[in-house]
Order: sequence, then structure tokens, then C-alpha cells
Amino acid sequence: MKRPLDGYTVIDMTRVLAGPYCTMILRNLGARVIKVEKPPFGDDSRRIGPFIGGTSAYFASLNRGKESIALDLKQPAHRGIFESLLSMGDVLVENARPGMLARHGYDDATLHQRWPHLVYASISGFGQDGPYSQRPSYDLIAQAMGGVMHLNRQQDGKPTRVGVSIGDITAGLYAVIGILATLHNKDDAKKRVDISMLDCQVAILEGAVARYDASQQEPPPTGSRHPNITPFDVFETQDKPIAIAAGNDALFEQLARTLEQPDWLTDQRFNTNEHRTDNHESLKQAIEDRLKRHPRAYWLKKMIADQLPVAPINTITDVLADPQIRHPPTYAPTYDSA
Amino acid sequence: MKRPLDGYTVIDMTRVLAGPYCTMILRNLGARVIKVEKPPFGDDSRRIGPFIGGTSAYFASLNRGKESIALDLKQPAHRGIFESLLSMGDVLVENARPGMLARHGYDDATLHQRWPHLVYASISGFGQDGPYSQRPSYDLIAQAMGGVMHLNRQQDGKPTRVGVSIGDITAGLYAVIGILATLHNKDDAKKRVDISMLDCQVAILEGAVARYDASQQEPPPTGSRHPNITPFDVFETQDKPIAIAAGNDALFEQLARTLEQPDWLTDQRFNTNEHRTDNHESLKQAIEDRLKRHPRAYWLKKMIADQLPVAPINTITDVLADPQIRHPPTYAPTYDSA
Repeated sequence: MKRPLDGYTVIDMTRVLAGPYCTMILRNLGARVIKVEKPPFGDDSRRIGPFIGGTSAYFASLNRGKESIALDLKQPAHRGIFESLLSMGDVLVENARPGMLARHGYDDATLHQRWPHLVYASISGFGQDGPYSQRPSYDLIAQAMGGVMHLNRQQDGKPTRVGVSIGDITAGLYAVIGILATLHNKDDAKKRVDISMLDCQVAILEGAVARYDASQQEPPPTGSRHPNITPFDVFETQDKPIAIAAGNDALFEQLARTLEQPDWLTDQRFNTNEHRTDNHESLKQAIEDRLKRHPRAYWLKKMIADQLPVAPINTITDVLADPQIRHPPTYAPTYDSA
Repeated sequence: MKRPLDGYTVIDMTRVLAGPYCTMILRNLGARVIKVEKPPFGDDSRRIGPFIGGTSAYFASLNRGKESIALDLKQPAHRGIFESLLSMGDVLVENARPGMLARHGYDDATLHQRWPHLVYASISGFGQDGPYSQRPSYDLIAQAMGGVMHLNRQQDGKPTRVGVSIGDITAGLYAVIGILATLHNKDDAKKRVDISMLDCQVAILEGAVARYDASQQEPPPTGSRHPNITPFDVFETQDKPIAIAAGNDALFEQLARTLEQPDWLTDQRFNTNEHRTDNHESLKQAIEDRLKRHPRAYWLKKMIADQLPVAPINTITDVLADPQIRHPPTYAPTYDSA
């Protein structure tokens, strides 16, 4: 099966996570990815655990299917190879501090003049310009400064990093979008993509900014609860917790029927989403009073039959064994193995 | 300034978040987006708070710059309008339960035959096929089943939804990638994009799957700490918490110098990232012993001067006032206001 980027070549000067995640997706879409690494150690993530047989499983998981060459841009012979790669490439991606390539003599103007066909994408902590652009960054820094750790804080108010590296990953996803959009537009005079990890965190704050605009108040910590949709939370059953998302009035009506509580529908505390959100604590109590009469498996079966949005909270073991996740996608191309 | 998708038209049958987030980005990239809403209430999110002057700020934040028409696909006249829209569109996006369009007579084969130019993208909870494909889903369900809430659990083990809707948002981002890649490949016989919210959560588990593969053990709850890089965490100072990400040995050496603790560099507990990760608790204690001697502002200034990756944990108020976030991007097109 033909893949959308078959025939394209990406020169990949990225390291660790945001950049390699971006070029992993470009590779999955069919591009040839040639990683240019800095001697003697290469990508920092080659030394990040866990290791399987001396190889970083972390590195392998992000760089499968890519080719790799070690080049020292201070050596003339290596610069010649690098410039040949730029001539054969369609895309150049890097995620160093702004100015890294310019210090080697490859500033924006030179790259654009000598390789005008090249889409040049940079991923950095704060963007190519602005007061913090020369500061170092990592996922944690982007999550902290972008407001995401504040929104993800625990009930006691303790700010908490999201348990997956969304500071890096959203930047990688936005970089793919920027590259594909720019490749798409052949007329663009300047084929430059400038992705800031901090901006990408602000771009996923979503409803929080609208809520702040409307109320001028900081959003309270919500735990697992959705701030504006109720019930949309994790609930206790007789044994294990269960996630229920009654995203509209019709689903709440079904939930009331499934839990045999028709009086909720006329209860002034619960008859609209706004009222339910105002009274989320008493509604949660009422729901858990019912749920605690049976184990989770009972409720999952019953609620799935009743077409309610419901789920167990899966561990990694559960995820890797799940029949839907293991189900092959209908339109899937073949992928590289690690 | 010309935008990459100037001249493209997107027929947008999406609602709430994952789909509208996708088409918001397509609009920002220059496409004309025509939202087709179901009478009488339209997109569910028109009724989700907060409201400003009777309008949902939540809806407005995601749908700015889009046009909108209400169509009832059961009425012949409305079907005629819908089919005219498909003829003028380049992309069709929807995020209903699989089969919604087929039930109205627009199954995949019909769409492909009558509108062969059209890229047809679906975002759903579980994908177009597989054992759960007909189940309803929301952000919470995707986060719960995809392993993200497990990785984001609190120190006491309580699984916790990420405080931003990354179940929806990552699906929206992957849908943009799928659409742009498919638009890019004019040869593709079947212009079909099938995005599963659940798959997208698995796609951002990142290092957790590599760690599980290497150890066959569930990752422990880590709070704000990175599981494999140390120190990379939130630390207490004399007043407010501070985020520090010493992502490699050179940065750890600088941190030891900044904190005037040169003996850490020869300490067998701390001399490699692997040793630091094994001894993360005693290192955190040692770092906080130093940090508690001064307030956060002192450390931010000193560590920024020393080129360490460091950050405050910003609230939404802080984010919206931040000079880097307010700094206009260098290559920015103009955007629609809400």
C-alpha cells in the first residue's frame, strides 16, 4: 500500500522526544528519514533507560525505521556530506536551541538561498524569537509554564506534571502539521516552520481559557471531573473504579434509567447540565450509592448494553491486551518494527 | 500573508471538541470551514458553559472563523444543499458514531463514487471497525481505556484524568495530520482517514510502553517526576514550588555548581542519570535542602542566568500575562477572533 509521503526525504537533526516523535510520524507516513547525529554519543536518548541488550528501548521506540549518520559540522568533509543531504532532502527538522544551525554557518537566509526547495522546521522550548527564546527547555518546563500542570493539579492543590510527556508530544504533532501544511503549499516563499513547546501547551488549554475569560477566576482543581459537564468523572463501585461520561441530557436520562433513579430527571438539582455541574458533589454521592451495590464488571456490562459511555481505568498491561487496541486498523499501511 | 490552505473548503459535520479542534486548525491554516449542524440545537457544545451574553464561550473558542448551516438530512431539500456542499468541498470531517452518514445514504462507497475528489475523515471513540466501534465515547473514556489516567494517577494510586482534554485534542491533532497527508497525496485511490480516540491515547503513552516491554512491570505513580530522567521534578523552595529539568549530565553538573554542591559530581549515588534515578528520593531531599534557603524568585533568576531549564508553575492568569506567550510569532498569519 502506498503511503502519503512515499518518495519524500526528511533530514532529521532532532534528539530526545519532541523532534524524534515528529519524524517518527513522518516515517510512518512513508517518508525516508535520515537522522544526523552529533558524535561521539549521538542523540541524548540513546543513554536514557530502560535498556534491552544494551540498546535504549526508549530510543528504539521513537526512532524505528530511520537511518542514521554521525556528522561533526565543524569538519569540512562532514559539512560536504551534510550539504549533499540537504540537496536530496525535502524537509529539514531540528529541535536545538534557536541559532544552533546559524552558528555552523547555516542561518535561515543561507538555507533558503542555497536549498530553496527545503521545508525547514524548528521545534524549540519557546520559539525562534521573544524574551525566553535562548532559554533551555524540556517537557516539564513547557507543562509548568504553559498552565497544564496547574490544571492537572491534585485535589490538595499540588501542581502535577501530566503522566505522559504532552509538552514534547503536542509540539511534535504540531510540527508534523506545520510541515505537511508547508509541503502542501508549493508557492510559499519562505518554507519555515517555527514550533514553540510553550505555545503548544497554551494551544491545548482549551476550555480553561474560555472559563477564565468568562469568570476572571482561576479554575479550581477538579480531579478527574470535567469542569463543565456532569456527570463526567471516575466513580467508586463495589470493587474497582469506573469512568462514566454522560456528555449530554439524553445520556444522563439513560444513566438515571440504568441506575433505576427516574426521580433524578425531575430533581431541580439535576435536571440540566448546569444544575448538575453546580451540584456535582451530591450527584456523585447519589451515583456512588447505587454503584457500590455491585462490582465494576456488573456495571460495565450493563452500561455498555445501555449504550452509555463507560470504561475501566486500564493499566499498561490492560492496554496491551485490549481487543480493540489489538484490532488491526482498516486502512493501515505497514509499519517498521523497533 | 498567504496561508497554506487558502482556497480549500472543509465541510465540517463535527461537534463538541475532537472534531471542532481539528477543523479549527484547518481554519487557522487558511481553509474555509462550513459547519453543518443538526437542527434544532446544533452542536452540543453550544449548550456547554461558560456563557458570555448568552453565547457559549466554550463553543466560540473552538468555532471562531467558521461558517455554519443547519441541515436535517432526512429532508430532501436539505439533502440537496448537503450534496452541493460536498461537491464544492475538498474535505469532509465528522466525529459521529461510525455509520451515521451511511444511515443517511452516504456510505463510504457512495461518497467515494459520487465525490471522488473528497478527503473523508472520521474521528470516533474506537475507530470505524473492531469490537468496540459502536460504543459511545468521550475524552474521559479514551483517557481511561488508553492507559493515560493510569499513568497520570496520584501518589496514593488514585487514577486521575489529565486536567486538559487530551483524549479529544490528540485525536483532533492526528486528524489534521491524516487530512493534510491525504490531501498531499493526490494519487491515493481511497481518500479515507480513520482516527480512533483510543488509538491516539495509546500513541502518546511513549516511554511507558518501552519501560513495560523492558521490565514487564506496571510503571509506579511518579507524581511530577520523570520516570527515567533525574532530577526532573517539582521542588519546594522557601515559598513557591519550582520546576527543574536537568535532562543530561552537563545540566546536572551545572545544577550542582549553581547549588554549590560540587561533591554531588563524585557521589556514587548521583554520578550518572541511572544512579540519580535509582536514588531520586535522596537527591530530591538534598536539592530541597538547598532550595529552601531562598524564595523561588531568587532561584529562578540565578538558574536562568546559569542556563538551567527551570520554570515557575504558571496559573492561567500567569499564562495570559507571560511576555513570551504574548510575543507575536515571527511567521504568523492573521487569525480569526472569537
